[in-house]
Amino acid sequence: MVDPANTVGLPVNPTPLLKDELDIVIPTIRNLDFLEMWRPFLQPYHLIIVQDGDPTKKIHVPEGYDYELYNRNDINRVLGPKASCISFKDSACRCFGYMVSKKKYIFTIDDDCFVAKDPSGKAVNALEQHIKNLLCPSTPLFFNTLYDPYREGADFVRGYPFSLREGVTTAVSHGLWLNIPDYDAPTQLVKPKERNTRYVDAVMTIPKGTLFPMCGMNLAFDRDLIGPAMYFGLMGDGQPIGRYDDMWAGWCIKVICDHLGLGVKTGLPYIYHSKASNPFVNLKKEYKGIFWQEEIIPFFQNAKLSKEATTVQQCYIELSKMVKEKLSSLDPYFDKLADAMVTWIEAWDELNPTAAAAANGKA
Amino acid sequence: MVDPANTVGLPVNPTPLLKDELDIVIPTIRNLDFLEMWRPFLQPYHLIIVQDGDPTKKIHVPEGYDYELYNRNDINRVLGPKASCISFKDSACRCFGYMVSKKKYIFTIDDDCFVAKDPSGKAVNALEQHIKNLLCPSTPLFFNTLYDPYREGADFVRGYPFSLREGVTTAVSHGLWLNIPDYDAPTQLVKPKERNTRYVDAVMTIPKGTLFPMCGMNLAFDRDLIGPAMYFGLMGDGQPIGRYDDMWAGWCIKVICDHLGLGVKTGLPYIYHSKASNPFVNLKKEYKGIFWQEEIIPFFQNAKLSKEATTVQQCYIELSKMVKEKLSSLDPYFDKLADAMVTWIEAWDELNPTAAAAANGKA
Repeated sequence: MVDPANTVGLPVNPTPLLKDELDIVIPTIRNLDFLEMWRPFLQPYHLIIVQDGDPTKKIHVPEGYDYELYNRNDINRVLGPKASCISFKDSACRCFGYMVSKKKYIFTIDDDCFVAKDPSGKAVNALEQHIKNLLCPSTPLFFNTLYDPYREGADFVRGYPFSLREGVTTAVSHGLWLNIPDYDAPTQLVKPKERNTRYVDAVMTIPKGTLFPMCGMNLAFDRDLIGPAMYFGLMGDGQPIGRYDDMWAGWCIKVICDHLGLGVKTGLPYIYHSKASNPFVNLKKEYKGIFWQEEIIPFFQNAKLSKEATTVQQCYIELSKMVKEKLSSLDPYFDKLADAMVTWIEAWDELNPTAAAAANGKA
Repeated sequence: MVDPANTVGLPVNPTPLLKDELDIVIPTIRNLDFLEMWRPFLQPYHLIIVQDGDPTKKIHVPEGYDYELYNRNDINRVLGPKASCISFKDSACRCFGYMVSKKKYIFTIDDDCFVAKDPSGKAVNALEQHIKNLLCPSTPLFFNTLYDPYREGADFVRGYPFSLREGVTTAVSHGLWLNIPDYDAPTQLVKPKERNTRYVDAVMTIPKGTLFPMCGMNLAFDRDLIGPAMYFGLMGDGQPIGRYDDMWAGWCIKVICDHLGLGVKTGLPYIYHSKASNPFVNLKKEYKGIFWQEEIIPFFQNAKLSKEATTVQQCYIELSKMVKEKLSSLDPYFDKLADAMVTWIEAWDELNPTAAAAANGKA
């Protein structure tokens, strides 16, 4: 059994975990003053900032942070015609950062997310918890009623098959939000004042075969294991839909993780989400997604990848074909999206030739 | 959307919820002094006490409780030859109480379970929470990352399909344990001092298609919806296995709930579990189960009930046939167990003729 104890209870300022193996990806259109509050936890890490919107605007990054910044001109320069797969005027552009990173792990966070406090009043080191989640196995094949069995003070309960207690490798860690919950526009409109104040002290594996709504606000993943599937789709400028970028990625990665035997966790860590977006603007972005998802979700629930698909790239290309075949009748947008999925993989492999060669060699 | 708000935040001593629609089933071999501590919460309810072991022993029930008590002689008298399906010298005998109850809901609790405290120090009214869980829908078809969407202060998150937001009817509420966790003998032996101190403030639905280890220590269910599947099997005296009674029931009810579109929840409420059972004795009871479960669980994971099975009884009889066919090769015990499953249903229908007629009429 893997013991994550070595990452438990560390003091705040030791050598940061995975300092040279993790990039923090931040999409933004404004100044990154929120990083001031994160300094004790995030300053040691390298940032990849993806500047959305007007490239002539100057983004201010707090002093002392090590970063690289890409605006739209940079994206066009790096990807050439393949830049068409990267969304514009939408935080979906963040996935460009996943592609240019050379690290094994990614943590992505929105610029309106601040440090949360746990019930004892202690500041939550979100990144440290994501790293714990990623380094410790998942248990998608059978449910453990005491939540994460690898956590200190917990274990597998009576009746949990011993053959499954090694778990599987974790590919994705999905964190949650205190204060402003991640609601859709209709729910925002109906419950404008609802705030999430419940701190649920748990990390759990999302069972195999179960889909979930993945939010990109506070998310970490193993880029080597699942990176090529973390495509946030075509959203924003020129597209009929927004605010489904992370959902799309979540459906795709879950189907692929299930197929490849990888784990997806949700729960801790919390961040403090400060600002509710405008529900009227959101409704405009979302309304097509709200009815499309009624067909998209059954599509993903029934999506079966072939045994020949043994790498993320192969799985993703298979999925793109199914999207074209099964979802194009819903709207011509899905035909375009299926093509963009292929372009994304081509661009990924171009920028990551070693990984691509390994993936092809493995095939 | 169902709003459970009418059951939230009630003062401690109003008219008790479902007072005339719920029985509390307690298996015991000793005095029921633990009920003293539960008086503020449980005294208004009717108890069904199933006395295990020596029928001549007198069980003391604290004054003021309304109860009926059955010892082995009573079970033999009520069921005649069909009494063979009820375990002896094992808490599995509790399921006899489910059968003789005439109420819609059952709460079953072990006599070494005390009132837990929440993190604020407040006594947890476990039964009230179980009732909330049962009266409020489940969401087995898609995962909600903020846990129970019907709870005050929570909702469905962005990306949750609107067509699934009504949820499904809840049939089972599985509560957890502070202090002594429900570990198997090997884990007890390895971690004799581990105590569960983590209060996870969440209720969640176990997704469709996912099995879980159901513990009978702190459990509630809708008897009308799932009662005939809550059979705790053949354990204890004369049987090669113990401590798998609740697990067996848990696998069966989950497969049947998934088939019939019913929900199973786990999480709150906690009870305080006071006494660790002897791990050496437990190992003797469990050791066959520990390797059998490696085949039993895949069996249940792959069990597919037919469309013709539309009542719990029909589902259960189908399951008994599959057990006979697929598990008898593992050990002759399963042949006997499959027969006992049929006897159990016959006995259930005899004692519950109206429900049986309705179930048959529905077929």
